[in-house]
Amino acid sequence: MEKVTRIGISIEPELLAKFDQFIEKQQYTNRSKAVSDIIKKNLITDEWEKGIGTVVGSITMTYDHESGGVIEKLAELQHTNHKLIHNSTIVRLDEHVCIEVLIVQGSPFDIKELADKVQAIKGVVHAELARCTLK
Amino acid sequence: MEKVTRIGISIEPELLAKFDQFIEKQQYTNRSKAVSDIIKKNLITDEWEKGIGTVVGSITMTYDHESGGVIEKLAELQHTNHKLIHNSTIVRLDEHVCIEVLIVQGSPFDIKELADKVQAIKGVVHAELARCTLK
Amino acid sequence: MEKVTRIGISIEPELLAKFDQFIEKQQYTNRSKAVSDIIKKNLITDEWEKGIGTVVGSITMTYDHESGGVIEKLAELQHTNHKLIHNSTIVRLDEHVCIEVLIVQGSPFDIKELADKVQAIKGVVHAELARCTLK
Amino acid sequence: MEKVTRIGISIEPELLAKFDQFIEKQQYTNRSKAVSDIIKKNLITDEWEKGIGTVVGSITMTYDHESGGVIEKLAELQHTNHKLIHNSTIVRLDEHVCIEVLIVQGSPFDIKELADKVQAIKGVVHAELARCTLK
Repeated sequence: MEKVTRIGISIEPELLAKFDQFIEKQQYTNRSKAVSDIIKKNLITDEWEKGIGTVVGSITMTYDHESGGVIEKLAELQHTNHKLIHNSTIVRLDEHVCIEVLIVQGSPFDIKELADKVQAIKGVVHAELARCTLK
Repeated sequence: MEKVTRIGISIEPELLAKFDQFIEKQQYTNRSKAVSDIIKKNLITDEWEKGIGTVVGSITMTYDHESGGVIEKLAELQHTNHKLIHNSTIVRLDEHVCIEVLIVQGSPFDIKELADKVQAIKGVVHAELARCTLK
Repeated sequence: MEKVTRIGISIEPELLAKFDQFIEKQQYTNRSKAVSDIIKKNLITDEWEKGIGTVVGSITMTYDHESGGVIEKLAELQHTNHKLIHNSTIVRLDEHVCIEVLIVQGSPFDIKELADKVQAIKGVVHAELARCTLK
Repeated sequence: MEKVTRIGISIEPELLAKFDQFIEKQQYTNRSKAVSDIIKKNLITDEWEKGIGTVVGSITMTYDHESGGVIEKLAELQHTNHKLIHNSTIVRLDEHVCIEVLIVQGSPFDIKELADKVQAIKGVVHAELARCTLK
């Protein structure tokens, strides 16, 4: 289905042994997937830092819904930025605290700015950006 | 509503000026929130690294739904770990790629292990863990 | 000697208690230094990422001196970039491996590029950039 | 001289193209070195986090030598921990600020603790730990 290219890599036996231990612990079934994932992770960081193109990801936040005005401010911020936000999912963790996740897509710059604005809202305990890539 | 303690901090004027610029850029409305957020961020890292207690967060992943068996494997992994997972939200980004976010709660160790297992599944392009805290 | 400004910060008592535990563990003698350090750490990351101004830091590397040509290549690279490098210190760790540290000063971009070039040299096991600031 | 093992890796053509661009920018002369370096970087993080074995690295700090007692406190701390410290190199950057680098070797835990103690000293602007590995 997917096309793959086969490349040969020279690696020190000792490093390979350590890497094989590592990927076994992480429950990889083969080295190719493990090597590809590490390479991808590296490139995603680069892609987000350079800020070019369109990326996807999520913004996860926790807050106390009773903390003055937090719900209204989050709603307003999300409406203003609705073009960046696919959807929002909320779980009520106890009487006070909830966790909300926005699935986002857009330029790295715009998404980082949105995450900063979420964090700056009074009542938001913590906001965390997860950086992914489309391909 | 929320109780707060007032503390005094001595800070070099130059550092304060730079920090004020920084928090203005991030659209904070006051310094107390900005300082509290930075402190919290530091402690969350520590909490997750030490691996004690119960934390919340999310696992964001992208994958091609046609990549052999990825949907079945993700379903099985999530059922096995249903006690760690509050819910799962999916957005179909195009004909092939989708982004899925799990909202998770449990011990840092168990959640990291789950994120590793998601990443190791064939067909998962990238999985990213967002670390938050309940309070 | 140093001028300091005194600011007041409102913080949740629970967060303050956790932070006080944290700074006690790190052996801080007072909160002001701990808060200032966290703020500074945040700003340094920002300064290096934006790439403006002059920064200082170090590039630490380990290598096997017998690995073909590594010493000559490192010498050449350092001469070409002598304006970025204050000095170089070497410790011979055993019959084969040594650790070398360059103290560097310049634009964040130039220093990152130098660190990348060090890492890319055949025989260099690992190169690591430590990002500091002048003030 | 060095023994290497040759392994085959299956990788998506698109990812490979991006990676080749990336390693060209970093001035790698071949893919094997680039892949090995990324793998190594991943394992070093793991090694330091698990805290097992002996690692090497450096602690880089900047400080104002006139800031009350900083020199005496740094000297005392270094003598107490002389078994962890190979040497110390200082560059005077201007009339006030200097940068000092300690080359260190020992258990990850002891070295992190030493770096924390350096940072906590009054007068130390910033301390940064560079994590390397012997092999």
